[in-house]
Amino acid sequence: MTVTNRQWRLASRPVGMVKESDFELASEGIGDLADGEVLVRNLFLAFEPAQRGWLDDVKSYIPPVQIGEVMRASAVGQVVESKNDEFTKGQLVSGMLGWQEYFLTDGTPGPFGGLSRVPDGIPPQRVLSVLGGTGLTAYFGIHDIHPVNEGDNVLVSGAAGATGSVAAQIARLRGAGKVVGIAGGPEKCRWLLEEAKLDAAIDYKNEDVRRRMREEFPKGVDLFFDNVGGDILDDALVNMAERGRVTLCGGISAYNEKELPPGPRNIMQIVIRRLSVKGFILFDHIANAAQAITDLSTWSANGDIAVEEDIQQGFENTPATFLRLFQGKNLGKQLIQIAEQE
Amino acid sequence: MTVTNRQWRLASRPVGMVKESDFELASEGIGDLADGEVLVRNLFLAFEPAQRGWLDDVKSYIPPVQIGEVMRASAVGQVVESKNDEFTKGQLVSGMLGWQEYFLTDGTPGPFGGLSRVPDGIPPQRVLSVLGGTGLTAYFGIHDIHPVNEGDNVLVSGAAGATGSVAAQIARLRGAGKVVGIAGGPEKCRWLLEEAKLDAAIDYKNEDVRRRMREEFPKGVDLFFDNVGGDILDDALVNMAERGRVTLCGGISAYNEKELPPGPRNIMQIVIRRLSVKGFILFDHIANAAQAITDLSTWSANGDIAVEEDIQQGFENTPATFLRLFQGKNLGKQLIQIAEQE
Repeated sequence: MTVTNRQWRLASRPVGMVKESDFELASEGIGDLADGEVLVRNLFLAFEPAQRGWLDDVKSYIPPVQIGEVMRASAVGQVVESKNDEFTKGQLVSGMLGWQEYFLTDGTPGPFGGLSRVPDGIPPQRVLSVLGGTGLTAYFGIHDIHPVNEGDNVLVSGAAGATGSVAAQIARLRGAGKVVGIAGGPEKCRWLLEEAKLDAAIDYKNEDVRRRMREEFPKGVDLFFDNVGGDILDDALVNMAERGRVTLCGGISAYNEKELPPGPRNIMQIVIRRLSVKGFILFDHIANAAQAITDLSTWSANGDIAVEEDIQQGFENTPATFLRLFQGKNLGKQLIQIAEQE
Repeated sequence: MTVTNRQWRLASRPVGMVKESDFELASEGIGDLADGEVLVRNLFLAFEPAQRGWLDDVKSYIPPVQIGEVMRASAVGQVVESKNDEFTKGQLVSGMLGWQEYFLTDGTPGPFGGLSRVPDGIPPQRVLSVLGGTGLTAYFGIHDIHPVNEGDNVLVSGAAGATGSVAAQIARLRGAGKVVGIAGGPEKCRWLLEEAKLDAAIDYKNEDVRRRMREEFPKGVDLFFDNVGGDILDDALVNMAERGRVTLCGGISAYNEKELPPGPRNIMQIVIRRLSVKGFILFDHIANAAQAITDLSTWSANGDIAVEEDIQQGFENTPATFLRLFQGKNLGKQLIQIAEQE
C-alpha cells in the first residue's frame, strides 16, 4: 500500500497574530510498512491556544515546533494497516499525531507520548475534548492546583472554551456555592447559563467586567480559574476575597502579541488580599489521568456536564480552523474532521 | 503633671512621592491622668514602607490614616506616669504609638493592638527591628508562606532592608543551599556579604539584574522573597526554577507612583514554570509571634543573624526620616530616636 500523506508544516514563525500563511501544505509518500509499523489515518484534529506558544522560538515547557516540521497537534485516527501486534486494523487511536492525513509509527512513544487506544463506546472526537488535554487540564486545575471547596465563589474566564467550560462545570459539581463564567458575546453567555448551568455569565465584549464581577461577588471571589490573563486578570485581582486562590491555566489574551504586554497593575493585591496564585501544566499530572478520565466520562455520559464541540470540516481548512480560537469563534472544543471513520 | 505633646499629623494625602509637607507638626496638652490611664514617652519611632500604603484613601488590609490624624507608626517608649495597675513608671513598652512624643492610653487595646512590655535585657530599639514587625514579617514569610527547604536556591530583594535582611539570613540558617540578596549600591552589597554572610549580592543600581540572576542561579531560583516588585519581579520570573515559589512581601518600587504601574510582563512564566506566588500580611500571623520572637532573640543575641539599625535623631526630623526608605538611604531598620531612656 502506498499513500500520499498531505501535511501542514510550519512555514514561518508567526509575528504577532498567527496567519494561515505561517503554514504550508506539503505532501509525502508513505510506502510499504516495515515490521512493527502502524499506519493511522487521522479523523479529527484538535486545536488549543497552547499550540500558539509552541510556534515561538523561546524556552518553554516543551521545545518549539521547528520550521518545516509538521504542526504538532493532538488527533484521533483509525489504524488502516498494522505490522505491529499491539494494534489491529480498524482500531481507533489517539496521540500527538499532527496536522497530517496519516501518522506512521513503529509504536515507540515519541517525546510527546505514543498511541493510545480509544475506549469502546466513546465517540472518537470525545477523546480530544472533554476526555482530552483540555478536559484533563480543567480537571487537574480544579482538583489539584487549588481544589474547589464546598461553597466557594468561583469565577472562570474563557468559560465557553474547551478548558474553561469543563472547569466551571466541575466546580459546580464539586459543591461550589456560585459559579460565574466570563465569555465573549451573548451566544456563549446563553450557553453558559442554559447548557452549562452556571449561576451567571459575564459578556466581556459587551459589559463592564470589573463592575459585573463586583455585582456577582459582593463578598469576593474565592477561586478564579483564569485562561485569559490581561485585563480580565487585572479586574479579578481587585475582586478577590481575602485568601482567595487564582489558578492560572493560560493567558490567551497575550498569545498573539508581538511583544509581551504589561502584566496586571493590581499585582500588589496578591499581598493585600493574601492571595495564592499558581500556574500548572497538564504534562505534570498525566500520571493521574485514569481517575480523571473515569470521572469525566461518567459526567459527560450522564449529562452532568455539557460538552460542546465545534467541528469544522476538510483538511485544507486546518490553519483557518486554528485561527478561530484567537478570533473567539469557537464554542467549546475546536476540532476539524478530515476523514470519515470506516 | 501637664506635658506638651508634639505630634506629626497627616496634612494631605501624598500624590506620587510622599513629601515632608504631607505632614504637619502640631501639639496638644496632656493634663492629669484619670484612673486607669498610662502616659508613655516615646523613645524610638519605627519606619516601614507599608506606612506609605496607609496614606492612600483606598480599601486595603487596614483603614487609611485620616487627614489630621497622628501618623500611625510602631514605637517604643517608657512609662512616665501610670494610674493603671498593669504598668509602672519606668517600664519600657511598645505598640502603635504613632509619630508623637507621648502616648496616652487607658490600657485598652485599640484597633492596632495595645501596649506590650519590652522584655528585660533587650535594647528597646530591638523590638522595633528584628523583634518588631519587619523581623516578624521576615520570619513568617520564610517559615509559613513558602517554607524554605534544605538546599533551596533563595533570592531576596530589598535584602539590605529591615525585612529582607532578616528573611535572607533566616533562609541561610534554615539550610538554604545558596542565598543571594539584591540591594542598591556597593555599601549595602558589601554588608550583605560581610555581615549578613550571604553567598552573593546583586547591586541593582549598577548591575544587569536579570543577567546576574542567571549567573548566580544557572538552575533557577527555588524561592524568591520579594519586597520590591516592578522590574526586579519581572526579571526574577524568567529566572525561577520549575515549581519555584515566589513570596510577595511588598512592592516598594510602586508605593510612590501616582498611578499603579504596569505589572510584570513575564506573568505567564507562572504557568510555564508552574510557579506558586503567594502574598501575606503580618497581622494574620501575629498569634504565633511568641516562637518567632524567641527564635529571633536567640539568633540576634548569638550573632547568627546580623541586625542593622539606622537610627536618626530628633523628633523634628521624623518625616524626613520616613522619606529615607524611598530614597534607598537606610541600611537595615530605619528608626529615629526622639528621647533618651531615663
